[in-house]
Amino acid sequence: MFIAMNRFRVKHGSEPEFEEAWLNREVFIDREPGFVAFHLLRGPQTEEHTLYVSHTMWAAAEDFDNWTRSESFRAAHKSAGGGKPLYIGGPQFEGFVAIQEVKPAGS
Amino acid sequence: MFIAMNRFRVKHGSEPEFEEAWLNREVFIDREPGFVAFHLLRGPQTEEHTLYVSHTMWAAAEDFDNWTRSESFRAAHKSAGGGKPLYIGGPQFEGFVAIQEVKPAGS
Repeated sequence: MFIAMNRFRVKHGSEPEFEEAWLNREVFIDREPGFVAFHLLRGPQTEEHTLYVSHTMWAAAEDFDNWTRSESFRAAHKSAGGGKPLYIGGPQFEGFVAIQEVKPAGS
Repeated sequence: MFIAMNRFRVKHGSEPEFEEAWLNREVFIDREPGFVAFHLLRGPQTEEHTLYVSHTMWAAAEDFDNWTRSESFRAAHKSAGGGKPLYIGGPQFEGFVAIQEVKPAGS
């Protein structure tokens, strides 16, 4: 399992617009080889921002790498960056390899 | 879906010991109500540390809250903090609510 996360520090007041942009976008990722699940996560707040994380689970790191080189990736990102900035700085990418997995007992 | 993450900045050289401690611990969480999955994640490196994240998926935030008040939680954490420190600072907790989920097409 490989998990690709992008952290977005969204300015207070811009949360509804940020969420709407994600919820209304066209989804291209759901037929990619090795794609397991995507979640948009809303996390903790500081005085100046709310942390959001785009969180994509892949069967393996190679599946993520292949997707970043695909037409589907370009289509998904072509409209990114338009409009006024809703978050502070750029998104911060962090890629993770799962080195242990625990599932519910009996599953 | 609720995801509870703890971020650990593990000092270079301490990675094998840190991983071993997780891989060899007794697992108490796998019978908890609402438990979906646990992953120990190894992420990016800086000059001084490797980022690890303990990553637990729950059906809902209440399931996580209930677990933190359980006997299972106390048992899982009773040995934490022993031995020499393997990471910089304390673990940094971040809790996330999923506001969008995408699964593979046709699943």
